Amino acid sequence: MTTFADIADALAGQAIELPSWAFGNSGTRFKVFATPGTPRTVQEKIADAAKVHELTGLAPTVALHIPWDTVDDYGALRAHAEDHGVRLGTINSNTFQDDAYKFGSLTHVDETIRRKAVEHHFACIDVMDATGSRDLKIWLADGTNYAGQGDLRGRQDRLAESLARIYDRLSGDQRMVLEYKFFEPAFYHTDVPDWGTSYAQVSALGERAMVCLDTGHHAPGTNIEFIVMQLLRLGKLGSFDFNSRYYADDDLIVGSADPFQLFRILYEVIRGGGFGPGSDVAFMLDQCHNVEDKVPGQIRSVLNVQEMTARALLVDRDALSKAQADGDVLGANGILMDAFYTDVRPDLAAWRESRGLPADPMHAYATSGYQRRIETDRVGGQQAGWGA
Amino acid sequence: MTTFADIADALAGQAIELPSWAFGNSGTRFKVFATPGTPRTVQEKIADAAKVHELTGLAPTVALHIPWDTVDDYGALRAHAEDHGVRLGTINSNTFQDDAYKFGSLTHVDETIRRKAVEHHFACIDVMDATGSRDLKIWLADGTNYAGQGDLRGRQDRLAESLARIYDRLSGDQRMVLEYKFFEPAFYHTDVPDWGTSYAQVSALGERAMVCLDTGHHAPGTNIEFIVMQLLRLGKLGSFDFNSRYYADDDLIVGSADPFQLFRILYEVIRGGGFGPGSDVAFMLDQCHNVEDKVPGQIRSVLNVQEMTARALLVDRDALSKAQADGDVLGANGILMDAFYTDVRPDLAAWRESRGLPADPMHAYATSGYQRRIETDRVGGQQAGWGA
Amino acid sequence: MTTFADIADALAGQAIELPSWAFGNSGTRFKVFATPGTPRTVQEKIADAAKVHELTGLAPTVALHIPWDTVDDYGALRAHAEDHGVRLGTINSNTFQDDAYKFGSLTHVDETIRRKAVEHHFACIDVMDATGSRDLKIWLADGTNYAGQGDLRGRQDRLAESLARIYDRLSGDQRMVLEYKFFEPAFYHTDVPDWGTSYAQVSALGERAMVCLDTGHHAPGTNIEFIVMQLLRLGKLGSFDFNSRYYADDDLIVGSADPFQLFRILYEVIRGGGFGPGSDVAFMLDQCHNVEDKVPGQIRSVLNVQEMTARALLVDRDALSKAQADGDVLGANGILMDAFYTDVRPDLAAWRESRGLPADPMHAYATSGYQRRIETDRVGGQQAGWGA
Amino acid sequence: MTTFADIADALAGQAIELPSWAFGNSGTRFKVFATPGTPRTVQEKIADAAKVHELTGLAPTVALHIPWDTVDDYGALRAHAEDHGVRLGTINSNTFQDDAYKFGSLTHVDETIRRKAVEHHFACIDVMDATGSRDLKIWLADGTNYAGQGDLRGRQDRLAESLARIYDRLSGDQRMVLEYKFFEPAFYHTDVPDWGTSYAQVSALGERAMVCLDTGHHAPGTNIEFIVMQLLRLGKLGSFDFNSRYYADDDLIVGSADPFQLFRILYEVIRGGGFGPGSDVAFMLDQCHNVEDKVPGQIRSVLNVQEMTARALLVDRDALSKAQADGDVLGANGILMDAFYTDVRPDLAAWRESRGLPADPMHAYATSGYQRRIETDRVGGQQAGWGA
Repeated sequence: MTTFADIADALAGQAIELPSWAFGNSGTRFKVFATPGTPRTVQEKIADAAKVHELTGLAPTVALHIPWDTVDDYGALRAHAEDHGVRLGTINSNTFQDDAYKFGSLTHVDETIRRKAVEHHFACIDVMDATGSRDLKIWLADGTNYAGQGDLRGRQDRLAESLARIYDRLSGDQRMVLEYKFFEPAFYHTDVPDWGTSYAQVSALGERAMVCLDTGHHAPGTNIEFIVMQLLRLGKLGSFDFNSRYYADDDLIVGSADPFQLFRILYEVIRGGGFGPGSDVAFMLDQCHNVEDKVPGQIRSVLNVQEMTARALLVDRDALSKAQADGDVLGANGILMDAFYTDVRPDLAAWRESRGLPADPMHAYATSGYQRRIETDRVGGQQAGWGA
Repeated sequence: MTTFADIADALAGQAIELPSWAFGNSGTRFKVFATPGTPRTVQEKIADAAKVHELTGLAPTVALHIPWDTVDDYGALRAHAEDHGVRLGTINSNTFQDDAYKFGSLTHVDETIRRKAVEHHFACIDVMDATGSRDLKIWLADGTNYAGQGDLRGRQDRLAESLARIYDRLSGDQRMVLEYKFFEPAFYHTDVPDWGTSYAQVSALGERAMVCLDTGHHAPGTNIEFIVMQLLRLGKLGSFDFNSRYYADDDLIVGSADPFQLFRILYEVIRGGGFGPGSDVAFMLDQCHNVEDKVPGQIRSVLNVQEMTARALLVDRDALSKAQADGDVLGANGILMDAFYTDVRPDLAAWRESRGLPADPMHAYATSGYQRRIETDRVGGQQAGWGA
Repeated sequence: MTTFADIADALAGQAIELPSWAFGNSGTRFKVFATPGTPRTVQEKIADAAKVHELTGLAPTVALHIPWDTVDDYGALRAHAEDHGVRLGTINSNTFQDDAYKFGSLTHVDETIRRKAVEHHFACIDVMDATGSRDLKIWLADGTNYAGQGDLRGRQDRLAESLARIYDRLSGDQRMVLEYKFFEPAFYHTDVPDWGTSYAQVSALGERAMVCLDTGHHAPGTNIEFIVMQLLRLGKLGSFDFNSRYYADDDLIVGSADPFQLFRILYEVIRGGGFGPGSDVAFMLDQCHNVEDKVPGQIRSVLNVQEMTARALLVDRDALSKAQADGDVLGANGILMDAFYTDVRPDLAAWRESRGLPADPMHAYATSGYQRRIETDRVGGQQAGWGA
Repeated sequence: MTTFADIADALAGQAIELPSWAFGNSGTRFKVFATPGTPRTVQEKIADAAKVHELTGLAPTVALHIPWDTVDDYGALRAHAEDHGVRLGTINSNTFQDDAYKFGSLTHVDETIRRKAVEHHFACIDVMDATGSRDLKIWLADGTNYAGQGDLRGRQDRLAESLARIYDRLSGDQRMVLEYKFFEPAFYHTDVPDWGTSYAQVSALGERAMVCLDTGHHAPGTNIEFIVMQLLRLGKLGSFDFNSRYYADDDLIVGSADPFQLFRILYEVIRGGGFGPGSDVAFMLDQCHNVEDKVPGQIRSVLNVQEMTARALLVDRDALSKAQADGDVLGANGILMDAFYTDVRPDLAAWRESRGLPADPMHAYATSGYQRRIETDRVGGQQAGWGA
């Protein structure tokens, strides 16, 4: 049997990147509710992210989104982050908000617009050079709303060409991670709708092109841990965007909708070598705190990943292999469930304290005065959101 | 066998209400693309709607959305509509965009906020009194994003109480129609998520409370025509919001995603007595033209409903009943498919001409100069959208 | 805070009915795998069910399925059950396996066949009279595979009439529970596809007609606990068929696919008064052990329900109400999750021992020699399955 | 504009393979209804298939399923088919009905069982050598019902190894086509659940390994024509299994549930070069006629494919490309819909007559006396089904 002591070291290496945009306002097409204390600048977003890391030890890096987080001096931003105890991470491109992209970006039938979109990615790579970021993440919103609106095949071919131009611009150990998404904002077809498409596209590029798996971007009923297994097996799992969903791309707090699914995903990550020192798989959050407070929402999220990682590490893999080999269905399932149902929270609290962290980061935040301070200080200006 | 001549009279009575907001800009949480010629005022929206009616003869009324279409003088607005050859129709309330409604409106735990939401509906009824509208349509966005966030039962009970207060305010032949929706903007639970809930709530109110069926508001795989049948059978089908979907509430042009489903729905409407002079069922569109032109988008939509109604009317119901009674599965299905595959477009074109309408309303619009004119005239001001 | 001591008494009253057919062979349309030790008779099924009760104290009754469990002398069968320490429970009818029902049973267009189906239910009520069962459960497989094959409305009307004839035959405190199911075995439409239809039908019958909620019979994404809440609110939740699903009606072990969903369901049951001495809601399993051993599969299932009931009882409802009233989204959700993540297994083991039950019923079964004995004894004859 | 005359030649080359099992009885796990006239032998199945071809000219080959269609002398069977005017086609393997495969076949943890499954495929290749069949189709039912029951990664690795052994046994222009399926008969995970997995597996094998796309084997909402496009683009679309679905793998008549989807699929096939003399893509049916007559069910099916192919060929691709390039969403969609709504049935009837075929094959069958003859002749023996 595996005990908490056995897994403590493995947990120590865990790092979950926070998205800068999680600290801004978000919502649905119907309404974005504003909340007091919301950052007005990328610097304030980084300060909030740093608070999450200070209290949890889990979130050493912050992902940026260009142009939402555009600044004049990325060196200064990098220093700002480091002053707050975090580093800048993945650079996320955006080719879905410029009017030019109404009918596509990297897939657009018009070479002028494709070039614009490609050059936006070049600019993102320039940012990466300045921030020292490893990963360029592309979530491509391209798609169509009506059958016939676009030529599916031509768009896919143009996508391949555009991606190749971007990939060729990468240098050193920079990587491209290509995210797939089942639907939204396009409602008939999406140009990178599934892992197969992302895999086929990145495989054609080269070793430093990988797939990004967003846990909320699948069809109903999809077995996500199977895809995790397959991408690890194929050597193409680049990164995770963690969140959870009941219906569509709900972008809820990771682990909140189906904790057991998160457990199975993390078990498969560990099983397939995607966790720990030898792995290059990046763990990120990609969430929207539409109705809940943002900083504690992020704290809750990284804790959920940590707690579930602990449970997944507790699985007695030798016993499991034996039960599987014996065709002992109930026994094998029981071994997994035993780990899932283990309450790791007390051990984790003690472990945190032993490492100089608050035992209960949620409580520590609530009593830190930080929320009151940002609500008081951040008055005036334009609160950050998806469009700003 | 039924021929087009047999159904021509029935078609003459068809009326499909247009939503004022379909002429404004819309989009997703990621981006709302603006388009030239978009109305800045409710008067301009009504003008656009009137154009649709002028070319199709199908859209004699326009639904308003409060507060998006708020004006000082509804009598003047009514006159404006009538000057353009259309009438004002259903009044749609909105309790999802005020900051007060972040955690609910008619279901809110706080009586103050419930009262505010109820009073908004009173104000809508005042508008109805002024416009002569029959129907108050309530789409309730209330719901929660996380398990435990709200008390499902308490919210349902409060909803019943709030609806009763609103219902009691109706007078004459005014009706309330309560729309249900599977999800969005809430992602864990929605307070009126399915027809059963809407039916249970309106049944508790009285005869003038009915269900509104939005064709895009169901779980994947739901047999919508079955619900149409059931609500007609129970005497509680108040109105339709037509649109189509591939994934979620995509709000695409009705009939564009699954024409055969629209056919089955309209067949069941006819079968159940929901079409024609004896029926009170209201037919409305509720769509978003995110990427296509809005006025021709609405023309295409009402034509789709008309064409499919014609096909549904063509079903040889006597032969169908006989095949059904005989257990002739292929025969019965074949009778339905024969009507569906009949190309009614030439007959409809001739029928339109015989009634002084353009044979091809889409072509008539394209050559009318209207689009160029509104693009030229509507400069400056704030284009209408969901927030204005 | 609620502790295990606070809930121990409530747990003592829990009873979960076992379906006789869970002990027989089952499978898919592709293959039914046979297993050694499978019962050949209803008496052997009851013996297996009694073993589950002996080891868990949770399963005092066994549901029968007619005609699979038909015997000449139900009084003798009742005595057999009582000799084994259990009682006979719900009687399940079957109108889906006779060749006459190819195109429907209670809904059939032919009165002769409807009468046959109604009379089958009369025979089931006769069985109930002999066994002392309270509930007649109707799962109606009626439906069609192709649009047009049947007249949806006519079928619904005939269903109402057939149900009324059956309902009128009930006496004393006998009840009818009408199950709904999204699809299967029919693939275009099902005559009782959703809770709304079941609710509308049973409401027309009277007080002793109720809805049966099978947790596996919903569209993807359906919020089942909402339906639980609504049916309890409307006074029409008659019984549960517990199982779990990833895709369709998978009939897997309850709690195995989405433990958190089971928790939310049970929380809503408790919240709505559906658990405990004052409630008439019946809890049953309805599962297929296609690949796992059957007796321990049933033990695992009732334990899952018990463990999750304990977690749901542990929710601090006062604190929850307060957080809900305060709009504290993370706090309210956290209160629920605290209960869910509590490892109740050690307390339950001790509680079982204090009541003369084995601390670990799964282990107790494995070491009991029962499985080996039935494998040795039950040789020859025809193993029970769905057709026998 | 494209007219029927333009596409008549292209239609002449169309061939749709019939599955022998479509003529046998089928059903659900609840019931298989028997029908008079059902074949008892593979020879009778072939006779029925030949009747379909005789009346439609569309179905020159018959797929066999081993062991359901096992005979001693495949040379004689080939001659029997040719005597009836058809040829033997794809050979389908079966590793889901032997008791040994309860926990897997090509993926099984036990090498003995994997070998047995591999050798079954060798035997199928022997049959192919005798029948002159080109394609070995593998639909792999392997999967698990409970998390933890199997090791997803190990199973995938073993699958790769087993497939390699089978692939190596192919000779000449023989091909392997690997089908994927979302779920069923396994309900937690399936070893080849999606096109990405099938693509990754066959890509590792070589040029003669391809993907089989069954139109009923996808998650709800999946854009199937996108996958068609992608597989054609990647050169890996080997064959189609046509059928249709509303919910799960319903195996209904192709084109019956969503005719517009079938149209879009066939359009993408044509667009991507998958139709016509230069293409190796095989078109097959894979359906169950649970409640409808089988021979006319197959006739209806091939006619549906033919009619929809004609509509897809009618799309004015030049005009479509122009509208797409212009960003004319409604125009582009309208071009597609124009073709879809064209009633090709009269032209096809004339075209059939010009080729010596009955104008209305369904009517021709109904009046042929064939059905009465087989009902009279096929008395006694064991009707063919999935288990025999």
